[in-house]
Amino acid sequence: MALSKKPYKGCRDFYPIQMRVRDYLFQNMKKAAHSFAYEAYDGPLLEEVDLYLAKSGEELITEQIYSFTDRGDRNVAIRPEMTPTVARMVAGVHRETSKPIRWYSIPNLMRYEKPQRGRLREHWQFNADIFGAEENLGEIEILSLVDKLMKNFGADTSMYGILINDRTVVDSIFENLLNLDKDQTYKLYKVIDKAKKVKADALDKMITDIITDSNSIATFKEYLELKDFEELFSYLDKNNLAEKSQSFKSFVNKAKNLPVFESLQYDPTIVRGLDYYTGVVFEVFDKHPDNRRAIAGGGAYANLLQIFDENPLPGIGFGMGDVTLRDFLETHKLLPDLSHAKNDLLLCYFEEDCEETAFKLATELRELGLDVELNLGAIKFKKVFKLAESKGHNFLGMIGSNELVDGVVQIKNLSTRDGENIKITNIKDIQKFIKG
Amino acid sequence: MALSKKPYKGCRDFYPIQMRVRDYLFQNMKKAAHSFAYEAYDGPLLEEVDLYLAKSGEELITEQIYSFTDRGDRNVAIRPEMTPTVARMVAGVHRETSKPIRWYSIPNLMRYEKPQRGRLREHWQFNADIFGAEENLGEIEILSLVDKLMKNFGADTSMYGILINDRTVVDSIFENLLNLDKDQTYKLYKVIDKAKKVKADALDKMITDIITDSNSIATFKEYLELKDFEELFSYLDKNNLAEKSQSFKSFVNKAKNLPVFESLQYDPTIVRGLDYYTGVVFEVFDKHPDNRRAIAGGGAYANLLQIFDENPLPGIGFGMGDVTLRDFLETHKLLPDLSHAKNDLLLCYFEEDCEETAFKLATELRELGLDVELNLGAIKFKKVFKLAESKGHNFLGMIGSNELVDGVVQIKNLSTRDGENIKITNIKDIQKFIKG
Repeated sequence: MALSKKPYKGCRDFYPIQMRVRDYLFQNMKKAAHSFAYEAYDGPLLEEVDLYLAKSGEELITEQIYSFTDRGDRNVAIRPEMTPTVARMVAGVHRETSKPIRWYSIPNLMRYEKPQRGRLREHWQFNADIFGAEENLGEIEILSLVDKLMKNFGADTSMYGILINDRTVVDSIFENLLNLDKDQTYKLYKVIDKAKKVKADALDKMITDIITDSNSIATFKEYLELKDFEELFSYLDKNNLAEKSQSFKSFVNKAKNLPVFESLQYDPTIVRGLDYYTGVVFEVFDKHPDNRRAIAGGGAYANLLQIFDENPLPGIGFGMGDVTLRDFLETHKLLPDLSHAKNDLLLCYFEEDCEETAFKLATELRELGLDVELNLGAIKFKKVFKLAESKGHNFLGMIGSNELVDGVVQIKNLSTRDGENIKITNIKDIQKFIKG
Repeated sequence: MALSKKPYKGCRDFYPIQMRVRDYLFQNMKKAAHSFAYEAYDGPLLEEVDLYLAKSGEELITEQIYSFTDRGDRNVAIRPEMTPTVARMVAGVHRETSKPIRWYSIPNLMRYEKPQRGRLREHWQFNADIFGAEENLGEIEILSLVDKLMKNFGADTSMYGILINDRTVVDSIFENLLNLDKDQTYKLYKVIDKAKKVKADALDKMITDIITDSNSIATFKEYLELKDFEELFSYLDKNNLAEKSQSFKSFVNKAKNLPVFESLQYDPTIVRGLDYYTGVVFEVFDKHPDNRRAIAGGGAYANLLQIFDENPLPGIGFGMGDVTLRDFLETHKLLPDLSHAKNDLLLCYFEEDCEETAFKLATELRELGLDVELNLGAIKFKKVFKLAESKGHNFLGMIGSNELVDGVVQIKNLSTRDGENIKITNIKDIQKFIKG
């Protein structure tokens, strides 16, 4: 039986036309990271499962991880997220590395998902983290980087917002105001996570399954209705939680005067599922009615290095997936035209005895840094313009028996229709005609 | 117990200093591919094992592959090589794609190897392939691309050579001259593969274990001694194999007049283990006595699409691993100094009330395309020069209370020691001072 030509379920084949889009996304991600002096890193494709057991959320391990036992009896997994890896790597070098540590990466990750819009089994995720920064300033820098990343793609705050909350604040409400135990806290976090996705009566039921006291229910519902930082801080003051939320307040006060604040929006339902967040948490949210989804998410963590027996080193980071980002850019028509490869020149020859000259000319032009598609084999003159157009070339070089005798190449600018015969020995003139 | 801080066996952590080297390798690979108008593609991390069973060598499947059964009962493998994937992808689109198809990729691959110098379990491999090119010209182009790739790294033919052979030629010697059956042919291919790695008497024994006829042994040994194309073609003529080797001869005759020929060297021991090669096969070989190893290898294949029930589409391609390439470049001292990240500016402030101004200036400079490391938190003047030097910055920007009052930033060129106070509102002047 013939083998399937399809990729493995939930994975993608990137043909050149899709790959140009991916490269465009990655280039803008790298540009944003470099503009904040973040340095690239990468880790291995496989990690021992223990690493994820120690730090990732339960759902990830039991339902979504690709794990298996290797030939040396190690229980390993294809990385489903990058944070445990970066924590392991930072744990290995943080003592001798000057702070803050600013790193980014664009790994491919695998999760056993049911494929659907915005969710695939394999995706690439831009990750940026800062470790050991002064309080609040690391948070502000990471949020500014998220903001810059979105703006690099041509997006503005009419298209996206950064929804933000703080786990310390939520924890203090749960513990001091609602008097929840650990188990209830865990469950209520899951409810908050779903608050915007379910209907009011379903939400009510979920809440009353966990909290029974009617005052507490009212207090919690009041929390869920908070609209902005002002409302949050009044609520906290009113409920005597000002002291517990001091850190988030001072963050907001610092951020207020900085450019990134324009993109920030308080949202009580943002808590981020993963267990390791301890401070600020945030999501980049698409404002378009057709695509109301998170494009990126992240937060601050105080204790990532603990599992390696290292002293705490606070950090903050975020991840942005290529699938959701692409959906966002398509929804807002922000993707440029990438339908053709951009080469400098299509070089053609009309008789076989021009072949040697054409190969040598191509070699020399490539040495000068030009991208040259050499048409392999003699081609008829009447076919070359159609060929060049179908491939999106701007310049066409032609060598026939006349040109061979004269030692020239005929070069055409296909946009302006300008043309010139240039001596093959004057290689710099050819370069100049094409590159200007 | 604390978790291990080491990466999974045979895999690497790429800290920024290693990552800069990897990025340098990848950038030069991409540059070489683009200069020949090859387009980037990528496939999924996982493929069904059947794909490798159909096309890869036996050793790869039984001993080296990372395979497991997924939650949907599919038998899948982490890709150990890229050729089966590219064959699958080409099979999917070749009918509606204009020829030749020129593609490249730099995937991460996993093989269950015993880690040693030049061999790791995870490595990245540059792959380039051309499908459906006119006979011999595809071969010449791919070899020229290999050559260009090496030269892009500053290598010359005193450092490397491209060792080349042809499977059709070897097959015809085995079949018509030595009268070997399929099983003997398979075994003798393995012997050839090892011919340069074992001692003469060990080689003798391996040969006589397969061939018993003394004339055939002598003929085979004579083959192994062939030094160049001339000797090969005399040997073939003498043994009445001229007709069977016509295709390789016409390839050599075409190549002879072209720039790439200088790098080519005939080698009877090059056969490439993988089962899918049918024509020209080659390896890039390091000439340095400390590192006599293959840096890249590839060949031509006529029947890769057969397993998908598609008509034959001849192709030729090669792979070059990042580990062996890096060893080569280090051996020949061809790696540039990548000890520091290259950012445009380190921006520091001396008092907390300069913070807002510094954050805003950093934001504006980033908008102009500059890479700015903002030092988070007030820093003492006497510390900034040391900090800038330790990080390899060329420019330093400073804001203290005096600068704040004057609305300027003090910018220093750390190489020339030139300095200027520039109005913060004259953002373009700052850019000009730094970027020239």
